[in-house]
Amino acid sequence: MNWTSVADARKQESISPDVEVRGWVRTRRDSKGGFSFIEVNDGSCFGNLQIVAPAELSNYESEVQKLTAGCSVVVVGELLESPAKGQATELHATEVRVLGWADPESYPLQKKRHSFEKLREWAHLRPRTNTFGAVARVRNQICQSIHDFYHERGFLYVNTPIITASDCEGAGEMFRVTSLDLEMLAKKGGPVKYEYDFFEKPAYLTVSGQLNGETYATALGRIYTFGPTFRAENSNTSRHLAEFWMVEPEAAFFDLTDNMRLAEDFLKRIFSDCLNHCGEDMEFFDKMIEKGKIDQLKSVIEKPFTHMPYTEAVSILENTSEKFEYPVSWGTDLQAEHERFLTEKHVGGPVILTDYPSTIKPFYMRVSDDKKTVAAMDVLVPGVGEIIGGSQREERLDVLQSRMAEAGLNEDDYWWYIDTRKYGSVPHAGFGLGLERAVQYATGMANIRDVIPFPRTPGNADF
Amino acid sequence: MNWTSVADARKQESISPDVEVRGWVRTRRDSKGGFSFIEVNDGSCFGNLQIVAPAELSNYESEVQKLTAGCSVVVVGELLESPAKGQATELHATEVRVLGWADPESYPLQKKRHSFEKLREWAHLRPRTNTFGAVARVRNQICQSIHDFYHERGFLYVNTPIITASDCEGAGEMFRVTSLDLEMLAKKGGPVKYEYDFFEKPAYLTVSGQLNGETYATALGRIYTFGPTFRAENSNTSRHLAEFWMVEPEAAFFDLTDNMRLAEDFLKRIFSDCLNHCGEDMEFFDKMIEKGKIDQLKSVIEKPFTHMPYTEAVSILENTSEKFEYPVSWGTDLQAEHERFLTEKHVGGPVILTDYPSTIKPFYMRVSDDKKTVAAMDVLVPGVGEIIGGSQREERLDVLQSRMAEAGLNEDDYWWYIDTRKYGSVPHAGFGLGLERAVQYATGMANIRDVIPFPRTPGNADF
Repeated sequence: MNWTSVADARKQESISPDVEVRGWVRTRRDSKGGFSFIEVNDGSCFGNLQIVAPAELSNYESEVQKLTAGCSVVVVGELLESPAKGQATELHATEVRVLGWADPESYPLQKKRHSFEKLREWAHLRPRTNTFGAVARVRNQICQSIHDFYHERGFLYVNTPIITASDCEGAGEMFRVTSLDLEMLAKKGGPVKYEYDFFEKPAYLTVSGQLNGETYATALGRIYTFGPTFRAENSNTSRHLAEFWMVEPEAAFFDLTDNMRLAEDFLKRIFSDCLNHCGEDMEFFDKMIEKGKIDQLKSVIEKPFTHMPYTEAVSILENTSEKFEYPVSWGTDLQAEHERFLTEKHVGGPVILTDYPSTIKPFYMRVSDDKKTVAAMDVLVPGVGEIIGGSQREERLDVLQSRMAEAGLNEDDYWWYIDTRKYGSVPHAGFGLGLERAVQYATGMANIRDVIPFPRTPGNADF
Repeated sequence: MNWTSVADARKQESISPDVEVRGWVRTRRDSKGGFSFIEVNDGSCFGNLQIVAPAELSNYESEVQKLTAGCSVVVVGELLESPAKGQATELHATEVRVLGWADPESYPLQKKRHSFEKLREWAHLRPRTNTFGAVARVRNQICQSIHDFYHERGFLYVNTPIITASDCEGAGEMFRVTSLDLEMLAKKGGPVKYEYDFFEKPAYLTVSGQLNGETYATALGRIYTFGPTFRAENSNTSRHLAEFWMVEPEAAFFDLTDNMRLAEDFLKRIFSDCLNHCGEDMEFFDKMIEKGKIDQLKSVIEKPFTHMPYTEAVSILENTSEKFEYPVSWGTDLQAEHERFLTEKHVGGPVILTDYPSTIKPFYMRVSDDKKTVAAMDVLVPGVGEIIGGSQREERLDVLQSRMAEAGLNEDDYWWYIDTRKYGSVPHAGFGLGLERAVQYATGMANIRDVIPFPRTPGNADF
């Protein structure tokens, strides 16, 4: 591991007569003065290192002058202060070794700028572009911030199961998981013999780790899950994925106020880490993807989030002159257009909506004293809409049981969840943040398929 | 969030006339002197906080004297230096508020010490025990160490897909994922109509993120994946799970030597973080689960790992007087018993076996100059056996293609993987560490089902 990263080589303090860099050619241009400028990137940062390759190199004509985008190289030479603007250093090569060529006739990223849509067909190559390299680094930073944030606050990372036999959480359509041979099943017909299936019963991919997470929060205090979750919904939109990552903190003894504060602190931490640690990437997004993104994030970080009860939000929506596709009245669920209006136009920043009608929220949310609403909270941000959904949980056994009955759920399926309310029940609260929504908000990338390496959507499980 | 954690309250520096703690009762004993000792835990650390509850409390007889294991309480009082041995502080209660009772007649964790096997039936309650609380904290620490270690070294966290259409990696049996209604499929018979399935083709749960990870490593240099992986193998053993977590670093420009160094540094970091940050938990494991564990880990951290080519290992195995169930000779895969002998008896510490015969290793491992072996490495540790498997990857297009042909693989299925060798190919290497194996090794827990919150095994997807 005895070479210098491009990120380090671009720093003044790395100046040295003997530096080795390894990476991929982004561009090459030949100067009339008898040398070539080669821009090399290795993924360690957004910017490239400029290589000055003199004609004296033994392979100058045979190789260096044939370098094109995508070729991999090892460059050895003297790292000097650069006279050029916009870069602290440049590497004067004494050796340019070519590891791998990238035939410009067939290399897809060679010639012109491609649309994001086109680049999805090359999901295996798109991280080699400026945009997707930057997305990968910001996504990485957000993941690290997630772990750091909860670790520092004493939340334990808990891996809740991906495969589940509960099909009844009602959070969305679920994928089936089976070890049965579907072709054989279709061929032989007859009833499904679950005794031959791996789990000996129907099994699914999880839509949320919350219920499992609650069992750990009510044992160990503060926990969070962070892993893939799934929806088998046939939504071919720029906002939906069949497979996405979600972080779900859950904390014993937290009420809705604690939960809102945690969510606000959490989002602020994520976005301020992006600005502090991914400066070049964020400047790129601010300039090329969504103008004003950096100022927008700064304002989110600096200003307290607005809190607003659902009832007030509905009243605002009913009284605005804004036209909506879907009607709104107390007791209806808010649509994306309503949420976007509230956060983008009415508030002009993040807003936490609270105290939704119990009829439109799941059984596990805590019923308030008014009996009509539950201690729910949704965090809405401009450009994305809902980014966090959560609640204080119903800790009272009898209320939980009657809410389950109302929802038509079978208590036997939830015996273990109910146990947490039978034995040492405590007030607790939590929420879920979709990682991809957070990356979208941080970067301004419009399509959720462009903020996850290999998106899974209806008809698409390629790569 | 205005209360003190048990971990903090147990520290000298928290001494204060006004402290509030929230947690669960572990034990209560009543003193003849007119007060009760209550041990309270909130998951923030292994040890409990001792509460001294005087008979003067208004609810002393009605509630305090009825507290049993599992009850949840809020305790307010004065935190004082404790006269008792083994604890720095104790909380003299002015208020003990009971949040939730745990009926000793029905609460499963009430009375006696249960076997780990029995506790698996209460996977939702077992984190309330000493052992599983400690396992959860050590597992959490190892996860954080994984992220910190790679983050510090410039590896980007990449989320590779869980659902995949590649069924051909040969790493093990795969689960099927479908949105088709199995009952309907069996009822109607006929061929499987994949055009109605979510992905419009057969889809599976991933067995490894490596191939996807390589596309990011050959674009951005250093990456790692860390997520759930799956095996539909009917292995009902203490070493196998159908769903487990794996971390897979992959680094461009790394050769086998770099890869071995990374693996060794990585394991040492994980285990030293456990000792440094989970002291009380590790003392518990050392005392109650596997005597000598701490010294064993210290020795792993301090001593360089032994390196040994497969050929030498086979020679040792052929020439030892040790009796094995399976015969061993050059060209056969090593069995667990052979690996355990090498690491436990022959070396007496971690050993990295390298340069395995190409015939027993996957197509993507780099063929060595001898044409007979590949640049593979397996890290073996005492008590667990193989904990890491990895290799330098085959970066030469023609060699890769001929290895794929030998393995009977269809190049068309891997077009995107092959592209990474067509365009700017670079030497690179990586490995996989099973998280649960690492937690087992750190804690000494004998059964892998006891180091993951909700184990998935043949016939079991409960909770």
